[in-house]
Parts: sequence; structure tokens; C-alpha cells
Amino acid sequence: LHPWINFDKCSKMGGARWEGHCSDHVPKSLRSTSWNEWLAFGLDSAELVWYDVLLSYPNRTHPNYISIVDQHGDEMFNSSLSEPVPEGYEHVTDIVPPYSAFSAQGRPQGDLVYVNYGRTEDFFKLEREMGINCTGKIVIARYGKIFRGNKVKNAVLAGAKGIILYSDPADYCAQGVEPYPAGWNLPGGGAQRGNVLNLNGAGDPLTPGYPAKEYTYRSKLKEGAGLPKIPVHPIGYHDAVHLLKNMGGASPPPDWRGALNVSYRIGPGFTDDFILNKVRMNIHTYNQVTRIYNVIGRIRGAREPDRCVILGGHRDAWVFGAIDPVSGAAVVHETVRAAGALRQRGWRPRRSLIFASWDAEEFGLQGSTEWAEENAIMLQERAVAYINADSAIEGETHTHTHISQRSHPEEGEERISLYESWHKRDNWTNNRDAPRISKLGSGSDFEAYFIRLGITSGRARYTKNRKTERYSSYPVYHSVYETFELVERFYDPSFQRLEAVGRVRAGLVFRLADALIIPLDCKEYARSLTQYANTIQQLALEHPEAIQRYGVTFEGLFSAVDNFTQAAADFHQRVLAVRMLNDQLMYLERAFIDPLGLPGRPFYRHVVFAPSSHNKYAGESFPGIYDALFDIENAADPDRAWDEVKRQISIATVTVNSAANTLHPVA
Amino acid sequence: LHPWINFDKCSKMGGARWEGHCSDHVPKSLRSTSWNEWLAFGLDSAELVWYDVLLSYPNRTHPNYISIVDQHGDEMFNSSLSEPVPEGYEHVTDIVPPYSAFSAQGRPQGDLVYVNYGRTEDFFKLEREMGINCTGKIVIARYGKIFRGNKVKNAVLAGAKGIILYSDPADYCAQGVEPYPAGWNLPGGGAQRGNVLNLNGAGDPLTPGYPAKEYTYRSKLKEGAGLPKIPVHPIGYHDAVHLLKNMGGASPPPDWRGALNVSYRIGPGFTDDFILNKVRMNIHTYNQVTRIYNVIGRIRGAREPDRCVILGGHRDAWVFGAIDPVSGAAVVHETVRAAGALRQRGWRPRRSLIFASWDAEEFGLQGSTEWAEENAIMLQERAVAYINADSAIEGETHTHTHISQRSHPEEGEERISLYESWHKRDNWTNNRDAPRISKLGSGSDFEAYFIRLGITSGRARYTKNRKTERYSSYPVYHSVYETFELVERFYDPSFQRLEAVGRVRAGLVFRLADALIIPLDCKEYARSLTQYANTIQQLALEHPEAIQRYGVTFEGLFSAVDNFTQAAADFHQRVLAVRMLNDQLMYLERAFIDPLGLPGRPFYRHVVFAPSSHNKYAGESFPGIYDALFDIENAADPDRAWDEVKRQISIATVTVNSAANTLHPVA
Repeated sequence: LHPWINFDKCSKMGGARWEGHCSDHVPKSLRSTSWNEWLAFGLDSAELVWYDVLLSYPNRTHPNYISIVDQHGDEMFNSSLSEPVPEGYEHVTDIVPPYSAFSAQGRPQGDLVYVNYGRTEDFFKLEREMGINCTGKIVIARYGKIFRGNKVKNAVLAGAKGIILYSDPADYCAQGVEPYPAGWNLPGGGAQRGNVLNLNGAGDPLTPGYPAKEYTYRSKLKEGAGLPKIPVHPIGYHDAVHLLKNMGGASPPPDWRGALNVSYRIGPGFTDDFILNKVRMNIHTYNQVTRIYNVIGRIRGAREPDRCVILGGHRDAWVFGAIDPVSGAAVVHETVRAAGALRQRGWRPRRSLIFASWDAEEFGLQGSTEWAEENAIMLQERAVAYINADSAIEGETHTHTHISQRSHPEEGEERISLYESWHKRDNWTNNRDAPRISKLGSGSDFEAYFIRLGITSGRARYTKNRKTERYSSYPVYHSVYETFELVERFYDPSFQRLEAVGRVRAGLVFRLADALIIPLDCKEYARSLTQYANTIQQLALEHPEAIQRYGVTFEGLFSAVDNFTQAAADFHQRVLAVRMLNDQLMYLERAFIDPLGLPGRPFYRHVVFAPSSHNKYAGESFPGIYDALFDIENAADPDRAWDEVKRQISIATVTVNSAANTLHPVA
Repeated sequence: LHPWINFDKCSKMGGARWEGHCSDHVPKSLRSTSWNEWLAFGLDSAELVWYDVLLSYPNRTHPNYISIVDQHGDEMFNSSLSEPVPEGYEHVTDIVPPYSAFSAQGRPQGDLVYVNYGRTEDFFKLEREMGINCTGKIVIARYGKIFRGNKVKNAVLAGAKGIILYSDPADYCAQGVEPYPAGWNLPGGGAQRGNVLNLNGAGDPLTPGYPAKEYTYRSKLKEGAGLPKIPVHPIGYHDAVHLLKNMGGASPPPDWRGALNVSYRIGPGFTDDFILNKVRMNIHTYNQVTRIYNVIGRIRGAREPDRCVILGGHRDAWVFGAIDPVSGAAVVHETVRAAGALRQRGWRPRRSLIFASWDAEEFGLQGSTEWAEENAIMLQERAVAYINADSAIEGETHTHTHISQRSHPEEGEERISLYESWHKRDNWTNNRDAPRISKLGSGSDFEAYFIRLGITSGRARYTKNRKTERYSSYPVYHSVYETFELVERFYDPSFQRLEAVGRVRAGLVFRLADALIIPLDCKEYARSLTQYANTIQQLALEHPEAIQRYGVTFEGLFSAVDNFTQAAADFHQRVLAVRMLNDQLMYLERAFIDPLGLPGRPFYRHVVFAPSSHNKYAGESFPGIYDALFDIENAADPDRAWDEVKRQISIATVTVNSAANTLHPVA
């Protein structure tokens, strides 16, 4: 209902650059754009809120790279220092090179071990089935399946002294699709930036649990939350080929093979002629406390100003960030524009709205987490819901059809509603099969609100193929190729899909802010709890002997879930009682109707109101009494006239009492 | 919130003409416009609903007129047969001449008596104070103050054998304003058409209480409801001068004098040289059963389709009808357009919407009343509210300032909300003084819904000066001068006022249809009842002796009003309980927060959801139990590991039980 997403305009606002520290350069222009424009759009207020948090940058004079060195320590191969810049962006001189933010510094050297995706199960297989010990090794893991920080953590736990991350074409190139700019696949020279923290919701690594203000105690750097203890670096698949092609050791399990023309041997180390070569990482990335800026805009609620609904999304980008975050930042920006326009026409939402443009999400959800930490008490007491607006599209590589297929709306197709589009695609026949909310996970700014503070949260985006594994992201994710043209040419040429996502997100926000009864369904929550309890019990039942031995029972939990289900059903009944209120309001006017009508006017039956007997245009109150009293001093038969007055008063009395009765809750 | 009133376009749709019977000619084009366009706008349905009702038309070959005749019966003066046609409308050949619809036929001749406005109090004064008996006389009453049908009824009760209605400049010309087309005053040749029925809500005179379908019993014509038994005819003030200027008899009370240059003597009859002259009415108007057509459009409600909100307004016009009804019909039409546009974007209202374009309102609210009669049972059970959309402007002549003053928004002024405009004008400082709903009266199509069926009803329009008497209407009301140009040049050049009225009316309809709790205030009703009870008691207290003698008491009524007031307050408390529901919904998610957090993850505190320990991007349900079970077969200390599983199950159990408790109504 809010026809205003100008993604094409907003997307052009995007673009992160590197200048010492990205967060000081890029977001500066974007934050003033947001701040000034949000005020101009008509919000009640917009402010910049800063925190001084630990960020991480490559060293300008000592670039990061990976080498293959011979037995003399001479560099036989060096990985690229940067990605080939896409056409049209050659003038941009301050593109931050691919790096792993918060990597430890160092120049570890050693034998390489290929650890597949670097998942827990991958290291289990390596250690338990293949008997390979990663201690003192440098591991190389392909990107995909899980968050890169978990790969790094697993490598540390396995004893590795460094970890190289690379994008395998199996995960970042769809078949039949060209590399960017001819298509949307990742070029061989592209690499995925990203932080490698394991913060577990801490926000700023130096101020876990508290806002990173000037008055806040800061941990020593070495005690910083979630910081990896080993060097980490990302490379593209052209570089990865050089590292992988001469590896020795065992052959990989079949599902460990990627799509490069190499053997994917596990190592450790190289084979044959290359057996004396080692891999050396050269990592000079440094951490630095840096000021970040959130933009916080507000519209005060008309009826429940102490309740708020929050729409937040991040503004910082690794490079140009056309999908991540600009496709989401545009949604926030356009929702603010819409809300401001409504505001200027006199509208206020029932509850207050808070719009947030977060900084430093890419460094570990820092802007959103610090603000949550600073406002935790207010939020716990007053926040109705948090809706997140990060990238509006996620696209996998696992399907071979063009990405525009199966999305809504089709190019050149008659526009249909998102709901109709879903229905058309999945053809469900009952509510049980309809699209439903799934688990949120993390990796974006809702985390502190949902997982720490327990605020109802939601996200919505397009997923190209929701049946495949969901955590590998789109091919050029966090590379220099995430340009406006990428979206315009391949992902959403008419911007209709982004507009649809914008409408869904803004629609959620407006409904949550305006609905008299908050549109949350605790019965649905009860159904999910039942399902989760079953799932977790199944997991325990895989150990039947242990369960018996240790007396593990889920009975109490199922009983609690039953309690919850019953309470939810009862609660729902009370919501339905609103219909009772409405019926009583609707029928109230009917309660004043006397089926016998007014004297001589059988079709004028309202005891409190009627057109005047002396002027149809005028309304008379208590018309029966009024007419009985009219000109009564000239009544031919005063006895009879005053009797009629008394009769009319009694009719009014009976009727008003009857009306009062209709307002009582119980019949 | 619905920016779509195109009054200027719709207004040009208007224009009623006369061709034997007006209702067959004019509404035909308008009804097909409405019907077809309403379907095209996107309503779920639109249908024509007909009734065969008694209408009334002038005789084409025997025109109606008033004569002064001499003692030989020769006509000395004849009133005009039609009004001078305004410039630009000369080509229109079928303009119905001024007449009083449903007048009796006849050529009564007699002495004239001037009866001021023809109100009950005017006849009281004539009969009781001035000793003038109207029996067998022809009375002449000026238009204004009350409904013309009441004047006719009073004349009949007084024994008159005919009644002439005229528009006095005191009531239909503002000082300093030119007659149309130079200004908005009534020209001397203009006259006010209109029906003179006293239906008291009966609708079609031949089928009172029942829909006028083919199967319905019809009364004999002489038994028709509300039909006047004497001839009636309206004239302009140029003609009225000829009738009034030579009248004899007593001088009038001061407030009986109009603004013509005549003595306003009461009569009966003429004076001096003219004493033998009489007045003769020549009335050939006939009644005829005629088919009328309502257009009924519907949008089905999404959540409460069995509840409906009705927006209705009439479509039939006396001539061009730019104000009455087109300024109202445009509101209905544009509201349908807006609703259709919303519908086509996927919106459905919570409750069903019914849009009605009524026919034959000018003949006694017939279209609306017949439809109410046909659908009475459905409406009684299901109608939430009826909103009426007749003329959007009413303007009096009692203020000497230009009509555009004190209206909203001012020409060339910054646009402000209607509420702000009200506030600016009246400068109230508390809710008690804010604009409030007043009594509805009658004279438009809400009557059957409100007064007969007891459906909550509302109307909203601009009134030029709400402090003056409200029932005299604007100067050119029901004349040939009610043209599009009248509105465009004098009443609302930018159509902003009509747009504002449209927004208010449509806003009422959309809120009534969409609000979860119907926005009706029974406490306000209680306050009104108290006030009305006081007012009616005061009226009785003017007769203190009689009250004592006849034992008249209002005690019971005040006690009933107290009951109602208490019930309304209690009811309001239950509405406030919605906040309790919302708080419980809002805090439900918080109930799953364990302040101790998950093991080793103090900031991940949600017991049901957390990012997976193995992939931050993924969500895990019951993460505490899940992590305790993870790889448990390889646990170094199984006793401790299974103990942790049990501990985690108990944490989940306690938490889910606590969450269930938060949903209970009582703490």
C-alpha cells in the first residue's frame, strides 16, 4: 500500500571505499545523506548516534598476501593484492582490498591442509576418519555453507596456525552463467571480504555487554571478544588453483571436491616436485578503535507513544555494496520517505516508529548491538518488534536457470501480489502449507534485539531457490563486483522484486505500529515449540541407552509446551472476544429502536432521535416526550395529554435501561 | 490517506433534465456511468436494483402557474412558467420547471393569507394572537427555516385550500452578493423545486414499510402515505412581489417582514383597488408509478465479511444539481474509485463495504428507503454503520462575508488538516469544546437506516456558518442555477473543500470497515443522553403545576441514563483491556530470555532460538539442549555431558512454563 520504493535512485547512493578505515570514509557521506534527508522527509527527529568500537583494516604500506615459498624461503607464487576493478570503476582509487577483518597479524609458514568447508563435521572427518592432525598447519577452506568466523574458530580449535579462505567455482559459479560483467558469476580474480569474529552477540569486542561510549571500560586487545588468534586471508579461485594444484596426501571424499581442475588432495603439504615448498601467509591487518555512526529517526506514536516498532538495516558496505547492504538500506530509506510523507499529511502511527541506519554491521553487527546495549532497558520495556532490512535478495548458485526465474514479479508479466506469486509457485491448498516464518539464525542486525533482548523480530527477502542450502550467499557477495549494474542487469532489472521486498518489510512495520491488536500469533508459536521439542527429543533418542542410564526425560518439557499451547489457545479466545465488543458497539444503536415506533409515525422508531414533527430537516431528542409536551398548555384534554407525557417518559426509561443492558459483558 | 477526489471531473457528470419523468431520463445515464465504472474500478460486484415507486411530474401540456384574477375571473397576472436559463445552458430543452412534487391537482381560488415561514408557531400566532382563520384561504409562505412539507402540512391543518411557496430575498440573498451568475444569490426569476410529502419515513407512498417490487401490495392513491391534499406551487421573488404588494389586512409582526419592497400585510386578500381580486392556483402535476434504480456496489470483507459498512448518497437531481447531489455523488464515486484501486493492489477491508448510489431521493428518500425495506433483516443483523453522502456544502445567507471565508482550506493558503483548520477557527482548548457529533435530523438518505433500523449513522459536510439557523439551505438550492460553474466560481474554486469533505466521509467509511475495534464511543453517547434528558426535563418543568398534579417524574429516566453511563464506562474499560492483550503479546518473546544466557554465550539468551554454534548464519532451536547433545557420543566425561543435557532440558521446561504463565489473563 505504499508505492514508493525508489531502489534505482537509492542504490546509486551506495558504494563503500577504503581510506585508512572504511567506516570513516564511506558512511560519512551516506550518514549525512540519511540524516538530512530523513529530517526533510518529515520524521519527528533524526539524530546521529556514535560509538567508538574496535574495527580492523589492512595495512596500506604492507599489503596482505599468500605465498608459496621454496625451501630457501623464496616466494614462488604470490596471491593478488587486489581484485581486477570492473569497467566503469577504474577511477575509484580507494577500494579496500580483499581481507579478513580482525585477522591476527603474522607470517605463519607451513604445510597446507585442505579442510573442505571448514565445518565442524569436516574437521571431525579429518581428525577422526582420515587421521590428519592440523596442529601447526595452515588450512585452506572453501567459502560456503557456514559463516566464515566458524571456519576460523574450527581451524583454531584444530591447532592450525593460519587459515586461507577461497571461493570455489562449485559454490560461487552457476553452470551456464558467465563471470561478471558478462554474467553474475564470481570472476576468478574476485574474493569475498568479511569479518572472522566469533562474537556470540558481544558487539564491540572491547566492550562486551555495554555500549562503547567514552565512559566505558575497554578490555585489553588480547582479551577482546571473539578475536581470532591466527592469521586469516581470503583469495579468489584463480589464486586458489596455485595453492591446490600440487597438493599431496590423501584423495578427498567425493563431496569434498570442488569445480576447479585440481585433485583436491587433502595434504598436508605439496606433492612430488613441490614437496619442499611451503605456504606462507603475510598478514598485516591491524585493529583500531574507530568512531561509528548510527542514524536514528523517530515518529512519535499517536495512541501508544511508549510502544515502538523498529525498522533497522545497515549502511556500511565492503565496497559498492549494491546488494549488501544497499538493497536493504534503500528499503529503510524509502520506508522513511513513505512514513514522512504520511506524517506530512497528518498521519501518525498508533505506536512510535524508530528507523535505524546501522554502521559497522560488516565488522560484527556493531552499530546495532551497541545501540541495543545503550537502550536495553527501554527496549525491553517498550519495543513491540524489530524488523531487519539487510540485503533484499539472496541468490544461490545451485540452480542452473536464470536468476530471474521463479521470482516475483516476472519481467513483462502482469503484476500480481506477492501472496499470489507465492501461491502460484507453491500451489498450496491449505494454511498449513502456506509460507511460514522460519528460524532467524544470525548474521545481521536483528541479533541483539531478538537473541539477547527477546524482542519479536522478523526479516524478509527474496531467496532464489529456497530448497537449497541457505548460507552460501550469491556469487559476488562482498567482492568488488557487487555493483549497481549487477543488480540492474541481472538480479532485478525493473527493481520490481526489490520494491516487493520493500513493501513487505514496510508493510510489516506499518502493521505492527498501527494494528490495534499487535498482529502476532502465539498459537503459531505454540505449534513451533511443539515441533522443536519433538525435534530435540528425536536427537536425544538417538542415544537410547544413555537416556535410560542417565534418566533423561522430556516429559516436563512436553508438559510445559502443552501448558503453553493451552495458554495460547485461551489467549486467542480473549482476542476473539474483541468481536463481542464490536457486536455490542454495533447493536447499541439498535437498542434504542422501539418496534412500535413513535406515535403516528410507525417508521420513526428511534426513541432518542427523530426528525422534528415540525421540521423534517431538524432532529429532535427524546421525540416522543417532546411531542407529548408540545403545546400541552392548549391541550383539549389535559388529563389525557399529561398521561401521554408519562407514558412517553416510561418508554424512554425502559429503552435506555435496555440499551445499558446490551453493554454488559454477560447476557 | 486517500488522495483521489476528482470532484471537478465528477461534478461535470451531473445534470438532471426533465422528460416526462425526470427519473427515467437523467439517472439513466448516470446510473450506467456508476454501474459500469464501479465494476471497472475493481469492486467485487456492482448491480442495479430497481423499485416501482410513486413519483410526481408536471403536466407538459398544462403548465402550472399562479394567477391574480379579477372579479370576472380574468387573469391579471400570471406567474412564470419557468426560470430564465443560465448562460451556456440555452441548448438544454428539457429542464423541468419549478414545481412542488406530489402537489394535489386543482385550481383553487381565494383570498391570500401571508403565513410567514408557515411554521407551527407562525400558524399559532395567526390563529391565536391575530385571530386569522385560514380555512378556505390560499396561503403564501416564504421558504426557509423548516422543511417545505411541514409548511404544507400546517397549511392543510389550518384549513387552507392551497399553498404558494416563495423564496424571499431576506432568506435567499446575502447582502452585498450579486444574483447568479455574477454572484451566488438567487435571481428573482429562480424558484425552489422540491417534494412536499410528509412521509415520516415511509418511502414509496403506496408501499409504506415494504419494498416497492412487482409482488408488493399497493395502497390506493388517495391513501398514499404523506400525500398533500391541496395544491402547492413554488415561485420566485419577482413573481411573489406581484402577489404580496397589494395585500391588505393586519400589519405583520416585525420578524415576519422579508426583504421585498412590500408591506408584508397578512391579508386575507388584497387592499383598496384590488380588493375584489383573488388568487387562483393552476396545478396539473400528476403522480405516476415509475421505475427507479439504485446502484449497489460491494467489496467483501477479509476478516468479517458478514459485517458491513455502507456509504450511500443519491444520484438524482432536480436540474443540474451541482451541489445537490453531485458534490455528494462525487464523494461516493471517488470513494469507490479509491476502494477499487486499493482492492486491485490486493487490499481488502476487514469488514465488507457496500456503496450505494440512491435514486429518487428528491421524491422522498425513496431509493434508500426501499432498499432498506428490502434488506431490513440483513441490515439489522449485519450493518455496522451507514455514512451518508449528500451535498458536501451547505451555505447560509446570514453572514455577509464571502462564502469562502472560514472554510478549509483557504485559497492560496498552506494546506492544513481539517482538524487543524477547525482548531484554528474555534480555538478550543479541551476535548469538551472540540467539534462533536450533533443530532442528525432528516432530509437525506440516512433516515431509514438510522431512525427506522437503528443503524449507527453519520453525515459530514461543510456549513458556511454553523451558528445560524441550519435549515434554509444555500440561495440557489433546487433551482436551475445550481450549476457546475456555481461551485467552480463561488463555492470551491479549487475543489479543496469538497476534497476535504470527501476525505472525511471516506475516512469514516474506511476506519469503520478496517478498525479492529469499531471506532464508536458509547461514553459520548452516555454524555448526550444525559444532556437530552436534562433538556427534555426542563421542557416539562415549564409546567410545574401540571407536573405536580399529574405526578410526572423523570427519576426513572435519569436512573436509566445513569445505568447507561455506568455500563458505558465499564464497557470502555473492557476496550482498554486490549492494551493488556498487546502487552502480553509484546512481552511473550521476552519470556523466552534466560538472563544467564546460553553456556559460554552470555549474550545469546533466548532459550528457544540461537545462532548455531557451528554456523552463525543458521538458527538452532532449543540451542542449549542441542549443544549439550552435540557429539555427545565422543564426550570425555559422559556422566557430566548427560547431566548437562538434563540441566538444559530443565531450563527449557522452566522457561516455556514461564512463558505460558505470561499469557494468562490474571497475574
